[in-house]
Amino acid sequence: MNWFDQSIMARRAVAKGKPGTTHQLTEVAQGQYHYTLGPNPKPVLHIQPGDVVSAETHDAFEGKLRSESDKPSELLNLPYLNPQNGPIYVEGAEKGDCLAVYIRDMKPRGPQPCGTTALITEFGGLVATGDTALLNTPLPERVKKVDVDAETGVKWTDKITLPYQPFIGTIGVSPEIESISSLVPDYYGGNMDLPDVAPGAVIYLPVHTKGAYLYLGDCHAAQGDGELCGVAIEHPTVTTVQVDLIKDWTFKWPRLENEQFYMTIGSARPMEDATRIAYRELVRWLAAEFDFDEIEAYMLLTQAGRVRLGNMVDPKYTLGASILKSIVGQAR
Amino acid sequence: MNWFDQSIMARRAVAKGKPGTTHQLTEVAQGQYHYTLGPNPKPVLHIQPGDVVSAETHDAFEGKLRSESDKPSELLNLPYLNPQNGPIYVEGAEKGDCLAVYIRDMKPRGPQPCGTTALITEFGGLVATGDTALLNTPLPERVKKVDVDAETGVKWTDKITLPYQPFIGTIGVSPEIESISSLVPDYYGGNMDLPDVAPGAVIYLPVHTKGAYLYLGDCHAAQGDGELCGVAIEHPTVTTVQVDLIKDWTFKWPRLENEQFYMTIGSARPMEDATRIAYRELVRWLAAEFDFDEIEAYMLLTQAGRVRLGNMVDPKYTLGASILKSIVGQAR
Amino acid sequence: MNWFDQSIMARRAVAKGKPGTTHQLTEVAQGQYHYTLGPNPKPVLHIQPGDVVSAETHDAFEGKLRSESDKPSELLNLPYLNPQNGPIYVEGAEKGDCLAVYIRDMKPRGPQPCGTTALITEFGGLVATGDTALLNTPLPERVKKVDVDAETGVKWTDKITLPYQPFIGTIGVSPEIESISSLVPDYYGGNMDLPDVAPGAVIYLPVHTKGAYLYLGDCHAAQGDGELCGVAIEHPTVTTVQVDLIKDWTFKWPRLENEQFYMTIGSARPMEDATRIAYRELVRWLAAEFDFDEIEAYMLLTQAGRVRLGNMVDPKYTLGASILKSIVGQAR
Amino acid sequence: MNWFDQSIMARRAVAKGKPGTTHQLTEVAQGQYHYTLGPNPKPVLHIQPGDVVSAETHDAFEGKLRSESDKPSELLNLPYLNPQNGPIYVEGAEKGDCLAVYIRDMKPRGPQPCGTTALITEFGGLVATGDTALLNTPLPERVKKVDVDAETGVKWTDKITLPYQPFIGTIGVSPEIESISSLVPDYYGGNMDLPDVAPGAVIYLPVHTKGAYLYLGDCHAAQGDGELCGVAIEHPTVTTVQVDLIKDWTFKWPRLENEQFYMTIGSARPMEDATRIAYRELVRWLAAEFDFDEIEAYMLLTQAGRVRLGNMVDPKYTLGASILKSIVGQAR
Repeated sequence: MNWFDQSIMARRAVAKGKPGTTHQLTEVAQGQYHYTLGPNPKPVLHIQPGDVVSAETHDAFEGKLRSESDKPSELLNLPYLNPQNGPIYVEGAEKGDCLAVYIRDMKPRGPQPCGTTALITEFGGLVATGDTALLNTPLPERVKKVDVDAETGVKWTDKITLPYQPFIGTIGVSPEIESISSLVPDYYGGNMDLPDVAPGAVIYLPVHTKGAYLYLGDCHAAQGDGELCGVAIEHPTVTTVQVDLIKDWTFKWPRLENEQFYMTIGSARPMEDATRIAYRELVRWLAAEFDFDEIEAYMLLTQAGRVRLGNMVDPKYTLGASILKSIVGQAR
Repeated sequence: MNWFDQSIMARRAVAKGKPGTTHQLTEVAQGQYHYTLGPNPKPVLHIQPGDVVSAETHDAFEGKLRSESDKPSELLNLPYLNPQNGPIYVEGAEKGDCLAVYIRDMKPRGPQPCGTTALITEFGGLVATGDTALLNTPLPERVKKVDVDAETGVKWTDKITLPYQPFIGTIGVSPEIESISSLVPDYYGGNMDLPDVAPGAVIYLPVHTKGAYLYLGDCHAAQGDGELCGVAIEHPTVTTVQVDLIKDWTFKWPRLENEQFYMTIGSARPMEDATRIAYRELVRWLAAEFDFDEIEAYMLLTQAGRVRLGNMVDPKYTLGASILKSIVGQAR
Repeated sequence: MNWFDQSIMARRAVAKGKPGTTHQLTEVAQGQYHYTLGPNPKPVLHIQPGDVVSAETHDAFEGKLRSESDKPSELLNLPYLNPQNGPIYVEGAEKGDCLAVYIRDMKPRGPQPCGTTALITEFGGLVATGDTALLNTPLPERVKKVDVDAETGVKWTDKITLPYQPFIGTIGVSPEIESISSLVPDYYGGNMDLPDVAPGAVIYLPVHTKGAYLYLGDCHAAQGDGELCGVAIEHPTVTTVQVDLIKDWTFKWPRLENEQFYMTIGSARPMEDATRIAYRELVRWLAAEFDFDEIEAYMLLTQAGRVRLGNMVDPKYTLGASILKSIVGQAR
Repeated sequence: MNWFDQSIMARRAVAKGKPGTTHQLTEVAQGQYHYTLGPNPKPVLHIQPGDVVSAETHDAFEGKLRSESDKPSELLNLPYLNPQNGPIYVEGAEKGDCLAVYIRDMKPRGPQPCGTTALITEFGGLVATGDTALLNTPLPERVKKVDVDAETGVKWTDKITLPYQPFIGTIGVSPEIESISSLVPDYYGGNMDLPDVAPGAVIYLPVHTKGAYLYLGDCHAAQGDGELCGVAIEHPTVTTVQVDLIKDWTFKWPRLENEQFYMTIGSARPMEDATRIAYRELVRWLAAEFDFDEIEAYMLLTQAGRVRLGNMVDPKYTLGASILKSIVGQAR
């Protein structure tokens, strides 16, 4: 039996994890992409719990970096970065519910080289930035274009090919009243840049507004832990997700489930606060839905918890804390 | 001669620091207060550079904490906190300009005790919070009501009276496309909670959107450095500001000038990043408009820079870095 | 062919990775254990490069927590915690050299239950501490004793058994003139609590003083990422290491090699600084000994770097950054 | 009446704040200066509580930077920096006691220009460092020599003279078993670089070892908040302190008293932790020796606490939190 049939999504969601109608959210259907996650735009799509959406995502630069001689400082225009598909209105979703998004498939689209990475001035994990505001001279800008193929991988150099390990860099729902830049990760999801948000996983997002308003974009073909220079292998994709709704499952920060583990995701600065958020949420989850009290969960995670660094470059850093299903069994 | 006549506002602004028409922004005129700073609401007022606005501000709790037996957790409803007057549309303001706001006067309003402070669950500088997410049991809630009188001060206890030293806790302009909670301080101003934003000072705010969209509220009758428990002496006021416009003065973070010093203001986490922002902005200001190069400014601030901690409790911490006019002379 | 034969230790060290004389560093031979890493104590052992040392380590509490009813606050006495074997004087080692320590074997010793974990007042990753100094009431103390068996694992509860995955929590050389508590991790190694420092790995430590003065102790039977509550499965062991010397290999922070990857290790607060240290060291290593320049290395690690969180509880947090040998090939 | 007669030192110390014998701790008497604070060196002086010590301090570079064309990287040799006078053995001092050091006088010594500041590679508050480890190119080195005169001040440039506001950059007692670099500030004092540690103040240091082992050095002629580039106006001095002993006054972090305020001093990273330490210690002090409970103290400091940033450049950042005596009255 597929693990997914025993997932929380399959057991508790309105459509029981069964796929409904498939919607094509093409570039044309999307029209205007969005640079904030908020409750104001008119939804681009209304769906029922269980429906499948196949979205044509842009890369984080909306395709503006086409050649290795391009200058990001000339072509990119803050805050108009990281374009998002959506918002998708999910019928029946209300504050206090949970949106369950099962990532079914991702594939690159567009002409080669369709992958882009870059050094952007005063952005990245090993350089002075707008926040870590120093007097050192910035590194020079640089753009690198790479072929991305779902079968053969990411052709980094003649000698090095990286496996194609796609994931969704930015996915989230709308805050209740704020409209936040799609560059920011937070309690509603957003720009987490966490490689576990990949095909085969279910991400659970706490709903803050009627209809949930799901956004997604910023898909990566490969990324190391931390997204060190700030730009993964950005690429346009067709990304297919199945969206379901769990009524009255209320929690504060995104959660994720895949075949191996349960994960909670925190975003904050400094990095220890993001880690504390993730681990406290996992303690609380274990206490609420597994057979542990909080202290037992705290002590068990000390011996068996796992941490994945998503990004160390965005306005908030993102980390996931997880525990293997082989250790804790299955959520109630 | 009054120092203000030599201020940057008096020398460079459109109205040359001369007061224009006075507008009464009463509770009735304001109508709906706002919980985000953003470009979407209809402006409550259109003014010309130089105009004076006298605003009836609410306290940060919109007056909901009336008695020391009140429970914040029952009466307050996130994200509907920290109500703001505005937005005020300033004619002629455009992205790249600077709004100069001269704080002319603040006085308490409403029946006594009109001052409120409180312990709010998982909020504050010396407790576990939503970000510094720990397993410790929260402190109990508490509300304290105090008389606030502009002449006699803040009656803390029978034995201790604190001087009335009012300032504007939250003041800012709209981001370009985001709408951010009024609890957040950032590059556009916002919830800085910095006691130097007081009568007699001019705050300079970088404009990001046509009309600038000025918001203000959250006035404090007294506050220590850091706003330690997260809640100063909150009080409703009549706050009077004179708003002017400096065309094409472009910088990244709020600046402030008073009789004694020039100050730059940074907001970030961790606290060293807020300090770095403030100091780097001051280095750049000294290099751009005083007779220093960046290295000289860096070395001089090492010997003579001053730092004021605004808040260590909000989503971003705020600090101001300053240098005495008696040391650096006057900006060009 | 064994990967170790192609390790840096085997290729560059004085004894070429060949094991020499074996020394038994029993409790009796050790005599007084040490609570600081420094250059002052008389070495307990003088060895030649290549020699093997089999050390009887104490647990971090020197065996004082014997029962689940014990109170750490009554039995433990700061700063006399985390007892270390050593110092071991390595003939020929001088400042600027590198000590290569190949971890050959670890096994538990002593009567069952030989594993101990605990909640210690104001210590841990999800509680207020002496540094994250808050007013919340501390969690209650707690001691948990567990059977540890090299074959059958760590018996956590009747339902949960964790695999025996031992590693050395504290290993390091002496600073040049300081004597630092064995609770601290830093550039010389120390209390890193990083699970990759395990049998089968070689750790490379920069030498700061004549003879290197190797210390080790604090062995863990199992530990999750971050050592969340501050206390892993502490246990006394027989730990066997082969110590070799690489002349004139000078770098700043510990490095590690195993069959799969090359790793650099940083320790600092906040956590992003530890991560920056680790990644910058890895960039520099790739630039110095692999076929990359610094910018290429930075961009490659963005796509393929891996991060392991060691501890988020010690006076400095420790993280390792690594890259697979399958991607970068072998160091020159 | 002089405020000092009502100081804690005058009321509680063994010698009641009365000066005893004066000792001249000249360069010759000192002999070898020290680069660590620890319990191992032979004391250079044994004194009775109340005795006065007049110490010839070196500057932080031991006078090696003599000309503006000097290169710090060629002349300075880590870890042999920040030479300290001492250790001074105080008769009767034991773990759990408090050393009270009244700073009576500081004056510059040696030929002009006797003041030195400098830019040192990868050190400072607005540059990438060994901990905030980035890939940016370092700023160039620079040395600046200035005349320092107790009457006329610090001659910064032809146009700018800064007042002579001397203080002791590094003062502390020995840890119990560690020997820590004199570049580090911590619970035992050390390199706090806090301008309030100035003539007219009493600093209270918790004793950890028999005889206390007092060290001091690193005197500054002027310094801004944060010691931004890492190097204040360093200068050799004759510094005169009166050392007294308060038996059984046990606390964790340095405290300070002067005519205006009571202060507690915290050192940690990130900066918010140093601030938390300082404020929590002040809460506890107010609760222990003034008429407040902890919650009242927490709420009062929210309205009236003051924060001084000492350094944002050393291995730990230092901040002082204080409250005016005019608000809280006098300690019991």
